[in-house]
Amino acid sequence: MSRIAVIAGDGIGQEVTAEAQKVLAVALPGYEYTEYDLGARLYNRTGEILPDSVLSELDEHDAILLGAIGDPTVPPGVLERGLLLKLRFEFDQYVNLRPSRLYPGASSPLADVKPGDIDFVVVREGTEGLYTGAGGNLHTGSPAEIATEESLNTRYGTERVVRDAFERARRRRGHLTLVHKTNVLVHAGGLWKRAFDDVAAEYQDVTTEYQHVDAAAMFLVNRPHTFDVIVTDNLFGDILTDIAAAVTGGIGLAATGSINPDHTHPSTFEPVHGSAPDIAGQGIADPVAAISSTALLLEHLGRADAAAAVNAAVERELASRDSGTQIRTGEVGDRVAADVAGQLS
Amino acid sequence: MSRIAVIAGDGIGQEVTAEAQKVLAVALPGYEYTEYDLGARLYNRTGEILPDSVLSELDEHDAILLGAIGDPTVPPGVLERGLLLKLRFEFDQYVNLRPSRLYPGASSPLADVKPGDIDFVVVREGTEGLYTGAGGNLHTGSPAEIATEESLNTRYGTERVVRDAFERARRRRGHLTLVHKTNVLVHAGGLWKRAFDDVAAEYQDVTTEYQHVDAAAMFLVNRPHTFDVIVTDNLFGDILTDIAAAVTGGIGLAATGSINPDHTHPSTFEPVHGSAPDIAGQGIADPVAAISSTALLLEHLGRADAAAAVNAAVERELASRDSGTQIRTGEVGDRVAADVAGQLS
Ligand SMILES: CC(C)[C@H](C(=O)O)[C@@H](O)C(=O)O
Ligand SMILES: CC(C)[C@H](C(=O)O)[C@@H](O)C(=O)O
Repeated sequence: MSRIAVIAGDGIGQEVTAEAQKVLAVALPGYEYTEYDLGARLYNRTGEILPDSVLSELDEHDAILLGAIGDPTVPPGVLERGLLLKLRFEFDQYVNLRPSRLYPGASSPLADVKPGDIDFVVVREGTEGLYTGAGGNLHTGSPAEIATEESLNTRYGTERVVRDAFERARRRRGHLTLVHKTNVLVHAGGLWKRAFDDVAAEYQDVTTEYQHVDAAAMFLVNRPHTFDVIVTDNLFGDILTDIAAAVTGGIGLAATGSINPDHTHPSTFEPVHGSAPDIAGQGIADPVAAISSTALLLEHLGRADAAAAVNAAVERELASRDSGTQIRTGEVGDRVAADVAGQLS
Repeated sequence: MSRIAVIAGDGIGQEVTAEAQKVLAVALPGYEYTEYDLGARLYNRTGEILPDSVLSELDEHDAILLGAIGDPTVPPGVLERGLLLKLRFEFDQYVNLRPSRLYPGASSPLADVKPGDIDFVVVREGTEGLYTGAGGNLHTGSPAEIATEESLNTRYGTERVVRDAFERARRRRGHLTLVHKTNVLVHAGGLWKRAFDDVAAEYQDVTTEYQHVDAAAMFLVNRPHTFDVIVTDNLFGDILTDIAAAVTGGIGLAATGSINPDHTHPSTFEPVHGSAPDIAGQGIADPVAAISSTALLLEHLGRADAAAAVNAAVERELASRDSGTQIRTGEVGDRVAADVAGQLS
C-alpha cells in the first residue's frame, strides 16, 4: 500500500490539496496518508520550518503531495529554502519535472496556437548548479561590498539527469534539447555538453539539439511546438519552466514533480502556483494543477493507467469550462474524481 | 566631429551596416568613420580576434557601430568572448541597453497586443556576474569531473547600473522593476536589493517593484505592457531581453547598446540578430535593427533629435510594409535615410 505524506501548506494550498486527495482516493484506492502541518503557520508559531524528526518521518513515505507554501508574514526565501529546496536536496530529487501542455479550454497568450500544439516536458536538474547556496558576501552593506554565487556542477549529477531526460524522450516523440550557455559559461557548459554527448551515443533513437538559454527562452515563445523534451540546469530550468507555464496559460494550471527517480527517498509533487493568500478560504481556487500533480505522482509510483485517467479527466474538465463562470474548488474535485472513477471502474 | 569605428563583421553584418551608415550619414552629417575588419574572416585568416593595437585604436573613437559577428566555420564562443564580451569588459560598458517596442507592422506572437502596448527598456548589467569567466574544471572528461562558475558582484558595479536605470525610468514613465532571484541567490540578491533600495531613496519620483527572474520571464509573456524599465544582472538580462525580443516580433527588429555612460571609453551599438550566413549576400536582410542601433548611438552622443528622427522613420518603414513582399536591404536604407533627411532638413 502506498504511503503518501501530505503537506497542504498555506493559503489555497489547503483547499486544492483536499481536491487532489479526492482524486487520489479513487485513483489510488486505499492509499495511506499522513498530514504534516508545515509552512507559514508552523513557522510563525514555533520558528520551525522542517525539523529533523519530520524530515525522517517524511522519508518513510513513498511520495509527498504538497499544496503551496508561503505567506506575506514570512520573509521571502525562508520557507522556500528551508522547506522546498531542503526537500529537493535532502531527498536527492535530482529530476525536477515540469510537463507543459496547452489544454483545450486553457487560454494561451499566444496567437495562432491550438490545444495540442504545445506538448513538451522540461527536465530540470534539481540538486546542483546555483542552488547549492555556495557563495558569500564581504563588507556587507558598505560601498566596498562584494557578493559571489557559485554554481557547482558534477559529472555525476549532470549525467544522471541527462540520462533521465533521454529515457523520457525515448518514451515520447524522441527529441531532446539541451539548453545551457556554453558560449559564456564555458566551465559548466563544457561539462554539460560532454555528459550530454556521451549519453547521446547510447540513445541513437533520440534526435538531439543544443540551444543557448537566451535562444531557448525566445523559441519557447515563438515556436513552442518544436520542443519535445528539454534538459537543463537548475537555474535555467527555473526560468524556462515559468515561460513554459506562461505560454500554456499560466502557472494556475501547471504541475511539477521534484523526483528522485531511484526511489531512494520520496519525491514531491505539487502545483506550480503559490498560496494565493488573496483568494484563500473562498472556495474559488482552481484545484486543477494540484490534481495534475497527482498524475505525476501516480506515474512515479508506476500507476501509468491511473495517471492517464487523471490527465484525461483534467483535460475534459478544462474543455467543459465556460469562460464566464467562476469555478468552485470543491465542485471541480468532485467532477474530476467522478470522471476518474468512471474510467477506472 | 564624431568619430565612429565601424565593425561590419560577418554575413549580413556587412549588408545591414552599410544601410545603417546611409542613415547615419544624414542623421550625423560629416561624421568620420574608420572600418575595422574583425570577425570570422580575420580569425580564419590570421587566428586573431581583437589585437591589442586594434583595441587601442577603437578606444580613440566616440562609438562603435557593429554589424554581426560569427560564422559556422568558427567554434562557438570564440568570437563572442574574444570580441563582443571583450569590448564590454575592456571598455567598461556596464549598461547593456535593450529597448523593446512593438512597432506598427511588426508581428508579435502574442494575441491581443496592439502596437504601442509594449514599450519598455531592459537595463542589463554588462561587466559583472556570471560573465567574468571565473570558475574552472577538475578531472575534465572523467566521471569525476566537476565544474564551477562564479558570479562576481560588487556594490560599485551594481550601484552604478541601478542608478543609470533610475535615471532612464525618470525620463520615461517613472517605473522601475528590479529583477533577481533573491530567494535563492541570497548573496548576490542581497547585494542587488541593498543597492537598489539605497538608490531608490534618491528617486522618490520613480515607483519601484521587485520580481524574481522566473516570475519576470512569465510576466514578459503574459503582461508585457506592465513594464517600463527593468534593471537586472548580466545573465538574467541576457535571457529576459531575448524574451522581450520574442514578444515584440523577434530579434530581427531589436537593437542594443553596450554603453559606457561615463564616456570614458566608446560604447558599442548593434542589431541583436546574428550574421545569418544562410541569407548573406542576397540583399534581402532587413537592416531595420542595424538602423535602430544608430538611434541608440545618436542618443548616446547627445543627439536626441536625430535619434528621434531615426526612430520615427523606422516606425514608418515598418508600418508601410506589405507582409507579402520581400524587402530589399538597400531600398530600406534608402527609404529610411530619405525620411530622416526630410525630418531634419
Ligand atoms: C520557490 C523557489 C525556490 C522555486 C525555485 O526557484 O526552484 C520555484 O520557483 C520553483 O520553480 O519551484
Ligand atoms: C553572443 C553572446 C555572448 C551575447 C551574450 O550572452 O551577452 C548575446 O547573447 C547578447 O545578448 O548580446
